[in-house]
Amino acid sequence: MDPRFEALADLAVHGANVQPGQVVAVAATTGQEEAARAVAHAAYRRGARFVDVTYFDPWVKRERVLNADPETLAYVPPWYGERALALGEMDAARISFSGVVSPEAFADLDPGLSGRDQLPWLKETSQLIADKSTNWCGIVCPHPAWATLVYPDLTEDEAYEHLWRDLSHVLRLDEPDPAAAWRTRAGELKRSARALTERRFDAIELRGPGTELRIGLFASGTWEAADFTTRFGVQHLPNLPTEEVFTTPDPMRVDGYVTSTKPLVLRGATIIRGLRVRFEGGRAVEIDADENAEALRSRAATDDGASRLGELALVDGHGRIGPLGTVFYDTLVDENAASHIALGFGFPFAVGDEDRDRVNKSGTHIDFMIGSPEVDVDGITRDGERVPVLRQGDWQI
Amino acid sequence: MDPRFEALADLAVHGANVQPGQVVAVAATTGQEEAARAVAHAAYRRGARFVDVTYFDPWVKRERVLNADPETLAYVPPWYGERALALGEMDAARISFSGVVSPEAFADLDPGLSGRDQLPWLKETSQLIADKSTNWCGIVCPHPAWATLVYPDLTEDEAYEHLWRDLSHVLRLDEPDPAAAWRTRAGELKRSARALTERRFDAIELRGPGTELRIGLFASGTWEAADFTTRFGVQHLPNLPTEEVFTTPDPMRVDGYVTSTKPLVLRGATIIRGLRVRFEGGRAVEIDADENAEALRSRAATDDGASRLGELALVDGHGRIGPLGTVFYDTLVDENAASHIALGFGFPFAVGDEDRDRVNKSGTHIDFMIGSPEVDVDGITRDGERVPVLRQGDWQI
Repeated sequence: MDPRFEALADLAVHGANVQPGQVVAVAATTGQEEAARAVAHAAYRRGARFVDVTYFDPWVKRERVLNADPETLAYVPPWYGERALALGEMDAARISFSGVVSPEAFADLDPGLSGRDQLPWLKETSQLIADKSTNWCGIVCPHPAWATLVYPDLTEDEAYEHLWRDLSHVLRLDEPDPAAAWRTRAGELKRSARALTERRFDAIELRGPGTELRIGLFASGTWEAADFTTRFGVQHLPNLPTEEVFTTPDPMRVDGYVTSTKPLVLRGATIIRGLRVRFEGGRAVEIDADENAEALRSRAATDDGASRLGELALVDGHGRIGPLGTVFYDTLVDENAASHIALGFGFPFAVGDEDRDRVNKSGTHIDFMIGSPEVDVDGITRDGERVPVLRQGDWQI
Repeated sequence: MDPRFEALADLAVHGANVQPGQVVAVAATTGQEEAARAVAHAAYRRGARFVDVTYFDPWVKRERVLNADPETLAYVPPWYGERALALGEMDAARISFSGVVSPEAFADLDPGLSGRDQLPWLKETSQLIADKSTNWCGIVCPHPAWATLVYPDLTEDEAYEHLWRDLSHVLRLDEPDPAAAWRTRAGELKRSARALTERRFDAIELRGPGTELRIGLFASGTWEAADFTTRFGVQHLPNLPTEEVFTTPDPMRVDGYVTSTKPLVLRGATIIRGLRVRFEGGRAVEIDADENAEALRSRAATDDGASRLGELALVDGHGRIGPLGTVFYDTLVDENAASHIALGFGFPFAVGDEDRDRVNKSGTHIDFMIGSPEVDVDGITRDGERVPVLRQGDWQI
């Protein structure tokens, strides 16, 4: 086994904070076997009771989209969701790998069709996240095909080495003690989150090339960062890497237009470039793009909340991803390079009890990047005062 | 895609007789992706509603056996069995691949430990089979590592080609119309099964080198072959290849000793050579072997029925497997080369209502080969008369 996967796996079980006796669900894609086996090793060494690795096969999904009755494409067998909820009921851990594996499996499919099949995403996963009923970690996983996509001018071997180097840096695996490095960065992010929470802004405004967007916040809203704690008390790092501070905005008060600053890669590898979205009264009323707008439109039409915001995240210029200037075509990495918003479900734990029922509900959650050094971020106070929040990637508060 | 996998997949969906609108569960092992994707293609083309491919990863199981608390090794998350039973409730189809993939994953493990973890086998699968609630097909799937095990003197490429040639022959994929060839062979097997059923033998005796075994039969017992029909009326070929006629014997009336005529490969790839079992009053009271007896002993100790017989199968010398003279180290192929018995659950559908409760119950089912041209098979009538059944592989009835 490539020892780099052992280091990645050690960080993954640290991120999820796997507890002795826990069942650990590992969500991998075919092609990520080496990482999955390394995580199984690391989790069993931490005392896991059972490591349940599932492999999603993009080529099987491709056969479905190409050959199944289009009317059946949204069907999900009941045991998928039942397993997810059972994980929550038994206080399990979850580790899932992000990263591109088989971009060619979906490249030539009709995005209107492939968007109907949201697997491996499950709407029940949003409930696990909202309920804080699993300690979990989504972590990036290098793959040669991903490397070729990110560094098309290099040979496959060179590209793969380059991807490992970049991702090791981004994951702080190039530090003598990656866990300690994450504690330090988590401290910084949580300080920013606290500062934003204390300001109690009524709204956030983003202004830059192609973007003029006002996003209303809940009066009881809080800003979160870096780590979560489950309802049974296990602190964990749900995303590695993570460079964001985020909240769940008011899904009824979003107005203006926004232009994405990075490509959006829908899980399943459909790449949406040049995305432009216009919001009215919280709803995404126009979705356009240079490529594959229809894939996002069909995702945004899956339920009522899929066309409203569930997340607003701000990313400063001091993380490790933005400075690389690289498009990774993977949401988990790219979303931590720049401020972003997400259509779909929000986070009930980021508001007080009085606003919990107003948090956006949806079976989906799609992040897309709208920040850059050229995008100014302001907070609007309840008195209508405008307070600079981010300028050229630097916190102003 | 290797077009041979397309032909194999076409035969698999024909064997399972996949119906339009069905959910199709495909059980594969990592390394069998090409076959799984080909089956997904073929099943969707037949109108499947959803093809649910699961990949069992032997290397993850290896990590468990090496690193988990031994006391937890029998644990199976509840959703495994719940999914199996849900397949039965929704009248689903099942296709599973047999064949060796990663023999080295278990070769050096303590068989007493690895035998505690029976995955990917599920006890609920025995209920699906007993209830005839799914139309299913277990089919062999070639793999280079399997080929190297079977033909150790050839190069990997030569061995793989040789395995494809042998298995194509055995699967009748070398016939212009494999489905028609299976209809013909199924007709022959069912004629032999009818002849055995009509004799209403009280017992079967096997005698040969190292074997002198008497197996009592149920008065209401029937002999089955080649195809099953689900409770909802779908005829299917549950095993491909199949060359056997079989019944479920009386689990209380088995006496004598038996020596296996081929190695037994437990799912998970532990190879048991030189197996010798002694029965008293139906129970396997002694299990010995030249190699890995402990793996079978621990399987036979999993529940009360695991040390009693659930199956007696007779194989004539006119199938396609026996004449090859090859040990395939895979039960689905090897069991169809020679007469065999199985410890574990029996088949309630092979007896009348009056004997149904007496059929052996167990969560396991382990076939091992006890027949050869040197083993004579006799039927014993209710009057104690001895009637030759098989001599040198030829039917005498």
